[in-house]
Amino acid sequence: LHSSDRIIPKPVKLLTLARDLRRRKARERQGYFVAEGVRAVEELLRSPLDLRGALVTPQLAAAERGARLRHALGARGVAVLEVSEAEFASAAETESPQGVLAIASVPRRALDDLALPSVARLLVLDAVQDPGNLGTILRTAAALGVTATLALPGTVDLWNAKVVRSAMGTLFYHPALSCTWETLDAFRREHGVALWGADARGTLVDALAPEVRPPRLALGVGNEGSGISPALRARAERLVALRIASDVESLNVAVATGILLYQLRP
Amino acid sequence: LHSSDRIIPKPVKLLTLARDLRRRKARERQGYFVAEGVRAVEELLRSPLDLRGALVTPQLAAAERGARLRHALGARGVAVLEVSEAEFASAAETESPQGVLAIASVPRRALDDLALPSVARLLVLDAVQDPGNLGTILRTAAALGVTATLALPGTVDLWNAKVVRSAMGTLFYHPALSCTWETLDAFRREHGVALWGADARGTLVDALAPEVRPPRLALGVGNEGSGISPALRARAERLVALRIASDVESLNVAVATGILLYQLRP
Repeated sequence: LHSSDRIIPKPVKLLTLARDLRRRKARERQGYFVAEGVRAVEELLRSPLDLRGALVTPQLAAAERGARLRHALGARGVAVLEVSEAEFASAAETESPQGVLAIASVPRRALDDLALPSVARLLVLDAVQDPGNLGTILRTAAALGVTATLALPGTVDLWNAKVVRSAMGTLFYHPALSCTWETLDAFRREHGVALWGADARGTLVDALAPEVRPPRLALGVGNEGSGISPALRARAERLVALRIASDVESLNVAVATGILLYQLRP
Repeated sequence: LHSSDRIIPKPVKLLTLARDLRRRKARERQGYFVAEGVRAVEELLRSPLDLRGALVTPQLAAAERGARLRHALGARGVAVLEVSEAEFASAAETESPQGVLAIASVPRRALDDLALPSVARLLVLDAVQDPGNLGTILRTAAALGVTATLALPGTVDLWNAKVVRSAMGTLFYHPALSCTWETLDAFRREHGVALWGADARGTLVDALAPEVRPPRLALGVGNEGSGISPALRARAERLVALRIASDVESLNVAVATGILLYQLRP
C-alpha cells in the first residue's frame, strides 16, 4: 500500500458507496448523498458543498454539455470513476440519470443556526411522501423567499436522490432540514413564530386581511392523501384554505404550497 | 364462430390493444386511451366515458379496495381480462399501476362546443413536455375553475397514460382538448378572448389592477426548458410574471400555472 491510498479515495469504492447511498440509513450514517443527472451535478459544482466523487458512463461525454461537465469535474479535482451502463444503472435512483451522478457531503444545518429576519416565512412539511412533490416544494420555497423549510418525521428524506433531482439545485443552498416537533416547538417559542396549517376546511386565504398575518409565520402542509397530522392540527393557530371547485378533491401539494406561500408572502 | 363473438369483444384482444395504446398514433387512430391504477380506474367508472375493457392481475383483489374495484368493473358489464404480472407490465406505462388498467374512449371535444361564460379563464399549453407536469396542470385548472384547457402542438398528448394518471380523474370531465394556433386564433376573435403569456420578463402579476384583467382571458404557459414559443409571444397582449428570488431560475411549470391562475381568477 502506498501512503497516497489513505488520502485519495480508491475510485472503485465509489460504485459501492453510490449503491449504498440509495438507503436513507446509509446516507444518515455516512453523511453523503447522491445527485443524479447533468443539471443536478452542474448545480452541485456551483454550490459550496464538498464533492466526494462522481460516476460517469462513456456516453456522458458524447454530448457537448456532458463533455463539459466531465471536464469540469476533473478540473475541480473530483475523483471520477467511469463505469459501464449496467454498473451505473445499478447505482442510479432517478429516471434517465444521463450517465452522471456525484456523491457529496450532506451539509450540516441546524435550526439554531438560522438567521431569522423580523418578517419571515417558514415552511413546515408534515409527512409529505412523494419525492417529486418534495423536490418541487423545495424549489418553490427557495423561489418564493422562504427562510427555511423544516421536514418533520414522516416526510420523505430530503437527501433522497429523486428529491435532490427535482429540487433542481435549490436544496444545495436553501436551508432545508429535518427536525422534530419538540425542536420546532422550542424554536417557535423562542423566536415568536406563529404556525398555520393548510387544510381544506380552513379560512379562505383570500379572505384574510394582510394585517392578520403574523410577521414570523410558519406554514404547515401535510400528506398527499391524509393532509395535516393531528400534531399539526393541535398546534396550528389558524387553518387556511384555497378556493377550489367543489367537484375537485384537492390540489397537488406542491401547487397548493406554491399558491399559499404566494398569497401569504410578506 | 358464435354470433356473440361480434358483439362481445374477445378479451384476449384487450392485452394487445392496451400495448398498442402506449403509442400516441395508436390512441389517435383507435380513439381509445388507457387509465392505470386503482384511483384512476375508480374515477373512470364514476365518469360518463365509455369503457372498452380492463386488464387486472390476480394481486388486484388481494387488497379490499382492489377487490371492490374489480367487482364494480364486472357489475358495470366491463370486459375484464385477468393477466399475469409480466403480461400486465408489458402493457402498463406508469410507475406501480397496482394491477389494474382500463381502456376507454377518448371523449370528442371541440372548441366550438364550449359554453363560454361572459367572464372566463382559459388555459393554453404551449409545448408543455413532461406528462407528470401536464397531469398536475389539468388537475389544477379543473380545481381553479378554468373553463377549458387547450393543448397546442408540441405539448405532450393529453391521453398519455402518465398524464391521465397524474390528472387524478379531472381529465375525464374538465374540457381539455388539443387544437392548432389557427383554430385558437379564430375562436379568440369570435368570442373576444384576450391572450396573456407567462414569462419571467413580463409585468409582475401582483402589480396589475383587477380592472385591467379582460373578462375572457386565456393564459398561455410554455415549455419547461424554453418557456413560451415565438408564436405565443407574437400573439400575447401582455406578458405576466411572478415575483421570485433572483437566485432561483424558475418555478416548476405546474406550480407557476397554479399561482398565476389563482392570482388572475375572476
